[in-house]
Amino acid sequence: MATSEASVTRIMVAVNESTIKGYPHASISSKGAFEWTLQKIVMSNTSGFKLLFLHVQVPDEDGFDHMDSIYASPEDFKSLKSRDRARGLHLLEFFVTRCHEIGVACEAWIKKGDPKEVICHEVRRIQPDLLVLGSRGLGPFQRVFVGTVSEFCVKHAECPVVTIKRRSDETPQDPVDD
Amino acid sequence: MATSEASVTRIMVAVNESTIKGYPHASISSKGAFEWTLQKIVMSNTSGFKLLFLHVQVPDEDGFDHMDSIYASPEDFKSLKSRDRARGLHLLEFFVTRCHEIGVACEAWIKKGDPKEVICHEVRRIQPDLLVLGSRGLGPFQRVFVGTVSEFCVKHAECPVVTIKRRSDETPQDPVDD
Repeated sequence: MATSEASVTRIMVAVNESTIKGYPHASISSKGAFEWTLQKIVMSNTSGFKLLFLHVQVPDEDGFDHMDSIYASPEDFKSLKSRDRARGLHLLEFFVTRCHEIGVACEAWIKKGDPKEVICHEVRRIQPDLLVLGSRGLGPFQRVFVGTVSEFCVKHAECPVVTIKRRSDETPQDPVDD
Repeated sequence: MATSEASVTRIMVAVNESTIKGYPHASISSKGAFEWTLQKIVMSNTSGFKLLFLHVQVPDEDGFDHMDSIYASPEDFKSLKSRDRARGLHLLEFFVTRCHEIGVACEAWIKKGDPKEVICHEVRRIQPDLLVLGSRGLGPFQRVFVGTVSEFCVKHAECPVVTIKRRSDETPQDPVDD
């Protein structure tokens, strides 16, 4: 059954890099949120949905870590920026390629800033039908220190939000890792 | 495309009666959550989903309100109970009929107790893939007095939860009404 653009459900999935493996690997919880969306919501109705992948990069407070000198030239700044961009694109490639294989329409883009603020801002701008977020499922004690993006977005995002907790068998030794 | 039982997504929708119109009318937010599920998730993939309607009735603390005497006989209690049951069934009828018309499989049942506790208990028992809750979208000030079932379930239900806020054009004069 053909589905007109108007009746396509637009699902925003916020994705980030693995804290353990780093770029270009997606975090366990991002992949979980994505797989849940495909398996439980999209299923065989591939023409009924469009997935919108948002990756928010946190500006590097200690951006010179990987460089030889703290006296950076304008070129150094430029290469730092393009390195970040390339990393973000590689991360998104995983999700876009998977969608392409399955035949689900998608878009993907990168923003910089505080993830929770940027996600809510992008929700206002894009107005998806649903926002899907992966979550590490931290306990209250761990949450105090690391904050949780999902908790903030559930409260503040101006669209329905669903949080997919990491499966317990996928939780790394330190649950703050992802 | 035929869908095997294993790949059917089971969505629990908690529904309650309208505080304005009373039984058998469903609350604005329940109907909103139901319609959202059909329009944004199920769409044409009617064989891919099963909807599970749970209606939780709050035990009437002031159960003699509608009776002539506070000295109730055992028969009075019995008729009270069957009246509640009939009301609950009428409420559920709206949702079940709608599913039947569209061709979506469903189940519906009634429980008594504190809605937030019962919903989380039923989630543990039934293990749906998703819990959909309507919400009045009350501000923090209003929430202090009426509590919110959705906020509790987002935190405690052992499955993904999505809260559908009432549309602003459907909000009654007093937002606590529903």
